[in-house]
Amino acid sequence: MTGDLAETVLSAGAQPGVPIRIVKYITYQTSRSVPPRDLAARCHRTLDRALEDPDSSLVEHQREHLDRFWDRADVVVADRREPVRVQQAVRWNVFQLCQASWRVEGASIPSKGLTGGAYDGHYFWDTEAYVLPFLAYTEPRIARNLLRFRHSMLAKARERAALLDLRGALFPWRTINGDEASALYQAGTAQYHINADIAYAIRRYVDVRGDTGFLADVGAEILVETARMWEDLGFYGDDEHFHLHGVTGPDEYTTVVNDNAFTNLMARLNLHYAATAVRLLEAESPDLFAALCFELSLDPTEIEAWDRAADAMFIPYDPEKGITPQDDSFLDRERWDLENTPPEKFPLLLHYHPLAIYRKQVLKQADVVMAMFLLGNEFTPDQKARNFSYYDPLTTGDSSLSASIQSIVASEIGDYRAASRYFDFALLMDLANVAGNVSDGVHIASAAGAWMALVFGFGGVRDFDGCLTIDPRLPRRFERLSFSLRFRGRQIRVTLAHDEESYAIGMGEPIDVQIRGEIHRLAAGAPLRLPVPTEA
Amino acid sequence: MTGDLAETVLSAGAQPGVPIRIVKYITYQTSRSVPPRDLAARCHRTLDRALEDPDSSLVEHQREHLDRFWDRADVVVADRREPVRVQQAVRWNVFQLCQASWRVEGASIPSKGLTGGAYDGHYFWDTEAYVLPFLAYTEPRIARNLLRFRHSMLAKARERAALLDLRGALFPWRTINGDEASALYQAGTAQYHINADIAYAIRRYVDVRGDTGFLADVGAEILVETARMWEDLGFYGDDEHFHLHGVTGPDEYTTVVNDNAFTNLMARLNLHYAATAVRLLEAESPDLFAALCFELSLDPTEIEAWDRAADAMFIPYDPEKGITPQDDSFLDRERWDLENTPPEKFPLLLHYHPLAIYRKQVLKQADVVMAMFLLGNEFTPDQKARNFSYYDPLTTGDSSLSASIQSIVASEIGDYRAASRYFDFALLMDLANVAGNVSDGVHIASAAGAWMALVFGFGGVRDFDGCLTIDPRLPRRFERLSFSLRFRGRQIRVTLAHDEESYAIGMGEPIDVQIRGEIHRLAAGAPLRLPVPTEA
Repeated sequence: MTGDLAETVLSAGAQPGVPIRIVKYITYQTSRSVPPRDLAARCHRTLDRALEDPDSSLVEHQREHLDRFWDRADVVVADRREPVRVQQAVRWNVFQLCQASWRVEGASIPSKGLTGGAYDGHYFWDTEAYVLPFLAYTEPRIARNLLRFRHSMLAKARERAALLDLRGALFPWRTINGDEASALYQAGTAQYHINADIAYAIRRYVDVRGDTGFLADVGAEILVETARMWEDLGFYGDDEHFHLHGVTGPDEYTTVVNDNAFTNLMARLNLHYAATAVRLLEAESPDLFAALCFELSLDPTEIEAWDRAADAMFIPYDPEKGITPQDDSFLDRERWDLENTPPEKFPLLLHYHPLAIYRKQVLKQADVVMAMFLLGNEFTPDQKARNFSYYDPLTTGDSSLSASIQSIVASEIGDYRAASRYFDFALLMDLANVAGNVSDGVHIASAAGAWMALVFGFGGVRDFDGCLTIDPRLPRRFERLSFSLRFRGRQIRVTLAHDEESYAIGMGEPIDVQIRGEIHRLAAGAPLRLPVPTEA
Repeated sequence: MTGDLAETVLSAGAQPGVPIRIVKYITYQTSRSVPPRDLAARCHRTLDRALEDPDSSLVEHQREHLDRFWDRADVVVADRREPVRVQQAVRWNVFQLCQASWRVEGASIPSKGLTGGAYDGHYFWDTEAYVLPFLAYTEPRIARNLLRFRHSMLAKARERAALLDLRGALFPWRTINGDEASALYQAGTAQYHINADIAYAIRRYVDVRGDTGFLADVGAEILVETARMWEDLGFYGDDEHFHLHGVTGPDEYTTVVNDNAFTNLMARLNLHYAATAVRLLEAESPDLFAALCFELSLDPTEIEAWDRAADAMFIPYDPEKGITPQDDSFLDRERWDLENTPPEKFPLLLHYHPLAIYRKQVLKQADVVMAMFLLGNEFTPDQKARNFSYYDPLTTGDSSLSASIQSIVASEIGDYRAASRYFDFALLMDLANVAGNVSDGVHIASAAGAWMALVFGFGGVRDFDGCLTIDPRLPRRFERLSFSLRFRGRQIRVTLAHDEESYAIGMGEPIDVQIRGEIHRLAAGAPLRLPVPTEA
């Protein structure tokens, strides 16, 4: 909060060939209680201090922090056609993530970071599903802050669940202080999957950092309350499967449906992981477990009920087409004629009545494809290819969250052209104004998506069941790609080329990593170099 | 519009045993263009005229009109337990219909008539589906006015269809001037069935009055444009059936579903009847037909397409349960536990989040039951009994439109207890404040529903395919029930008792009526008396 912005005129005596150097000082203050006027005064004082003492530690601190940030977060990519511009674009995106997450304390990361007023500073699932993976692998301390912040809103999530006549907690789809701020439930509250996105993010953070203490701290409580919501929302049908009806998945072009595949798959994970986490706590810290049970009135039969619901979870499958239907009636719908939709009619949501969109097979983002990324170990390679080729032609990409995930899964199934094209969309979302609304602010989730497309897509990094696996899929357009992963206290540096790959850790105990299907032990000071196998 | 209401104090010298007679003059002015102040002045002038000349023709006119009204509309019922109160209640309801419809000119009948401000004077499908049948059988001229008024809003209905990316016309769910005034589409615009309700009302009016000229006048145009909407909204699935997705039926406790049975059945009627009406016009008035085709760019292939879509219409059916599912996934839902829902939690819509309601099997009104009433010739008696016994226990009756239809169908399937109980709900909706909101105004549709429960339910009157049929089902609680039906220019008087029934026409040519399955010719001056067959 910097108060009113006065227009500033700079004058300088310029001489040919002599650059003029402008140093710009920016400061930032935030508070929920201090009035804006006082925050502005604080900003002025900080700036005065910096100006009065140009050798102050401020510059030094900033430099240190940025060095550390880039050491962990930089992705170096050598694009054959546009090496400079692509590298610049990658760093621009990563820098947006730096700015958006630098000072996350007692708050979350809004969809636009601090770059614009769109969405009123609210945050959605993007934070957990897109930004948190980047943070878990680069700045896990901040990932932890974010999840602790979610926990701070648990009381309101419990109220919200009660309002919907549900047990446990239901996190708001859109919020700034824990209250649901969605105007319409169908593309808002009906996205119950927010609960599972948070559970998934907890699992990922705990696994990647190895921080099981987080479960005892606040993680288990979130997992218990989110699992309770699922167990109450669902029911056992005549087919003895556990069903979730009246929900909206991440794809907002189909709303309030039955058995959305993404939601059911993610809810299954939420239920199982809640049971796993609570049992882990019981085994490792019986006292903390007893305290948790007491505080949450939790008993063993309830834990068993989560596992039972998860085991019985109905996952739609169409044997004829060999694909995962987005929901129980998606494949029965009429297909939207995307080929004959004029370009000026996109995004569809701004040009068609919701009822015109909802009744057709057309996607804002492909949530089955997203499920194949997040839960890739629950699909066969064949299913992945079939699902991708069914949903990709139905996907408008009207959501800025779409391109990066399409790129990652296209990489995985070997469709390098699609992977590369979608990567460019994510990379240039704001720099080339792909979505046409960059004036509203930066798409922080898409910036994180660009990082994910590089690391999870072309880099092939996964962490199912807490196991780090790397299956590189370097496209021909890149000569080289290198990035770092913070994993269980080690800094793993990965450099991929078409002839050779190298994997190294900076410090710490050796660690096992599965690369291209084989376990390799990485030890400090002994980089692993592997020749790249020739493609079949 | 009477302007401000001043408090009036009446003083009179009262004497024991001598009644005080108070004569109250009420006048009514309406206009879309004259300001309220001037309308109030007009009211004052009318009242002054009446007061200055107590022998004026005003009283006489009113008396004449009311005599005529009661001659056509009165229903005489002899209830064994509460003869006076039931008769009074019946007349109270019929009188509400009289007041609400007396001066319908260039307007429709709002849900509350002129008795209250709830719903802002808007009208819904109630007018066509509940009030119009009463008018068609008692004051067909007013029924015609109502339908002509709908036609006057056709241009806006065309705009509305275009806005939803549909051909033809889509009438607004809630309106006062033709613009859609629903706040939320799921229980509003998604009720596409409004189009078919209007088509059904046209068919009923034309058949009951024998006014085929109405089709040439404005009826055919409405039918063409509504049929076009259905043909465009639906699509042929892989099963070669014609499907309607993303619609809401009359039951607003389940919204935006696929293949709602009520909607599909009524759309089928709309499509078929549009084709029939246009072909009738072609045969009877080739010139008018040619003009219609020219004006609406209508060609024969389009008419064939309506019949084809109607013939292929998908009507959900569950062979295992032998019932008509409300929609394609209704039976898969979890059942709402109505038995354990506390009484203060009704109506559900005021106490539960829509998402909590929509995902369960629970009904505001049973639209499959309504379909069995409107399209009774498309269901077997067995299907009717099975459907009723499936849906009735799921029906909250939270809609004031529910009770009368449940009563009619309960009568038909021989469940006299349910028929009688539901009739009382409809009859006393406002007098006993059954819905708890009588202070918002009279439920005009429920008043019409009480008339329908008497005439269509206990009286057993139907007019499928323009054929008048009467299958009386007089319950034990009534000693006698008599009512009149205006049908093709004749006044048919029906008196039902448990030993004998009589059917008579006042004037006009003889007419054939099907009574208890047999055709009888009714002739003026020769009442038909039939003994009541003993029940098997």
